[in-house]
Amino acid sequence: MTISSQGKPCIICVAITGSVPRKEHNPAVPVSIAEQVESTQAAFEAGATIAHCHVRNDDQTPSSDPEKFGRLLEGLNKHCPGMIVQLSTGGRSGAGQERGGMLSLRPDMASLSVGSNNFPTRVYENPPDLVDWLASEMRQYEVKPEIEAFDLSHIHQAVKMNQDGRIAGKLYVQFVMGVKNAMPVDRETFDFYIKTVKRLAPEAEWCGAGIGPGQIQINEWAIAAGGHTRT
Amino acid sequence: MTISSQGKPCIICVAITGSVPRKEHNPAVPVSIAEQVESTQAAFEAGATIAHCHVRNDDQTPSSDPEKFGRLLEGLNKHCPGMIVQLSTGGRSGAGQERGGMLSLRPDMASLSVGSNNFPTRVYENPPDLVDWLASEMRQYEVKPEIEAFDLSHIHQAVKMNQDGRIAGKLYVQFVMGVKNAMPVDRETFDFYIKTVKRLAPEAEWCGAGIGPGQIQINEWAIAAGGHTRT
Ligand SMILES: [Zn+2]
Ligand SMILES: [Zn+2]
Ligand SMILES: [Zn+2]
Ligand SMILES: [Zn+2]
Repeated sequence: MTISSQGKPCIICVAITGSVPRKEHNPAVPVSIAEQVESTQAAFEAGATIAHCHVRNDDQTPSSDPEKFGRLLEGLNKHCPGMIVQLSTGGRSGAGQERGGMLSLRPDMASLSVGSNNFPTRVYENPPDLVDWLASEMRQYEVKPEIEAFDLSHIHQAVKMNQDGRIAGKLYVQFVMGVKNAMPVDRETFDFYIKTVKRLAPEAEWCGAGIGPGQIQINEWAIAAGGHTRT
Repeated sequence: MTISSQGKPCIICVAITGSVPRKEHNPAVPVSIAEQVESTQAAFEAGATIAHCHVRNDDQTPSSDPEKFGRLLEGLNKHCPGMIVQLSTGGRSGAGQERGGMLSLRPDMASLSVGSNNFPTRVYENPPDLVDWLASEMRQYEVKPEIEAFDLSHIHQAVKMNQDGRIAGKLYVQFVMGVKNAMPVDRETFDFYIKTVKRLAPEAEWCGAGIGPGQIQINEWAIAAGGHTRT
């Protein structure tokens, strides 16, 4: 952990693999379970607290296979004792309820998108009934959701789901900026996101994630503002 | 037109039919072209400036049929001379490019969604390539788009499309609030929408639309803040 200028511990979440980049883009991307465990252990020893995890098929395409997630979870629990493991239920790795097939593994956390938005070339589809089903699985298996807020209404929706019991406990909201055709990296919006979280859910924790060239910018803003951040 | 407290004319846009309500919900909903023309004329004579139009099939289900839109346009031009006619390209009335089949009729305006979001029971899908195609048809036929901002990133996206030439002329942005699973009626967000439009597109005009019980609230806020509004 890092101590922010506001004196509060900053949680660093490492997205070790993601669903898009491949070896041909960057040979250092960890793709196999063994590579992922090794890379996460290095990040853990360097101070990261949360590992945000995707798994891949042998051809490097994204997967939601619970068996692969299970092996990753086992490797991380063994090599990074105490690290918080967050599994992705994102839409690039599967369709419909496939996206939540790994929740019965009871990871510490899982990502949860509560609204829909555009991505660079398509719609990121999170229909209301799927969102509710993923949230109910997370309640059942006591998995802490990280809300992926790709837009402002997603914060409102998370608060509503928290208030009516669809999401249990204190909210953990991640602001995602810099995705083409969704929310750009914009300082005023970033500040308004924080203001909105503090107004509607004062107990919540928040985290900033910038995509591509926006990553370092969002890291700086989030740490300075007393939030958590994603690398 | 109405003069707001800020001394600027307020454009009142009447959504005469919409895509959802039917005679069984409210017998006063104008469904046939003749009913729509009659109802719009009454609104026009009462001071409305823009007619936001949907057309229906004989069984009242929503339609994108260019022939129906053509007859409505003709009736409105005849009975409401000078009124601005805005045709809906919304997603409830058709799929894909069907949604823009009426743009070649060269209405004054058409609605344009530039992002995706959740609706009460489904995803409102506006994939990037369809958005770009609808925008290019509007440029080709000189149709002024009304941007439907269901979320904050939609304002950013409209500004980007305006700056890179995909949307011509001064932006006209409508804030839509009160749709379940999208943006609720929220005063701080409403004010931030205005602030964002003024910051990123100072020349733009904006309009507030509240759905269902939020309608009157948004009308009041929009008129008081010097914007336009939708009934
Ligand atoms: Zn991810
Ligand atoms: Zn995070
Ligand atoms: Zn409409
Ligand atoms: Zn309007």
